[in-house]
Amino acid sequence: MSQLISETKKAYFAGFLDGDGSIYVQLKPNPTYKYGYQVAPYIVLFQSQKGKSNFEKLCSVIGLGYTRERRDGIMEYIIGRNDEIRKFLAMVKPYVLLKTEQVSLMLQILDAKEKVENLEDFKVLAKLVDRFRELNYSKKRKTRIVTP
Amino acid sequence: MSQLISETKKAYFAGFLDGDGSIYVQLKPNPTYKYGYQVAPYIVLFQSQKGKSNFEKLCSVIGLGYTRERRDGIMEYIIGRNDEIRKFLAMVKPYVLLKTEQVSLMLQILDAKEKVENLEDFKVLAKLVDRFRELNYSKKRKTRIVTP
Repeated sequence: MSQLISETKKAYFAGFLDGDGSIYVQLKPNPTYKYGYQVAPYIVLFQSQKGKSNFEKLCSVIGLGYTRERRDGIMEYIIGRNDEIRKFLAMVKPYVLLKTEQVSLMLQILDAKEKVENLEDFKVLAKLVDRFRELNYSKKRKTRIVTP
Repeated sequence: MSQLISETKKAYFAGFLDGDGSIYVQLKPNPTYKYGYQVAPYIVLFQSQKGKSNFEKLCSVIGLGYTRERRDGIMEYIIGRNDEIRKFLAMVKPYVLLKTEQVSLMLQILDAKEKVENLEDFKVLAKLVDRFRELNYSKKRKTRIVTP
């Protein structure tokens, strides 16, 4: 898809992401996962419900992820699959001006996530996820116990 | 300035505006103005304080308006002068995809504002401003008394 999207459209989405978007990774406690946590990366763009239909049209241009309406009426465009996040970031990366660190860190995390073979690898991944929290919020930092 | 700004940069700012920006007009009661109100148009882009220095750099690229830090830490990039709003909108208009109605209405308002010669003209202008509120919020609508 990204081949078919014009450079100005890619730049547009980079601006949208810098302005209103969120790049983050959740480390969700989940005993069914090998190391006790699910690593869930996300890119989310937001819009008030007023522009719903235009926003949905706009997001469908990208051909990745999905939109959903929150209970408070805010529309979210969510990209959560590794391969789709990679595609989206490849598209906007040359034009992102504010969230450059988040973009790089997310790519590092996807690499690390796909390479996890043992507990040590997982700890490296969890550290990267922690850095994300520092980057986005910089305030509180939770200590987590990685179950073997 | 806008001649020197690349098309992808213009598209970037269009995306930023669609995602996080605000286009609005305040009708401020002010007895020193001929018709009792000051018509104050604004374009504002927002950013958390974390990205402050990058955001300021970014906005300085445009060469219009100014940035300020609100008490709650949010950074605002504000364009409030008629001629500067026109320049900014001329730059982003071809790439705006969501706030298209707000862009058109703002241009109409600037035209009307610059042509006010009598109370009738002012009432036309005030109607346009009211339409803005409907566009942005769609809920409550205040009735205002235009002092002659």
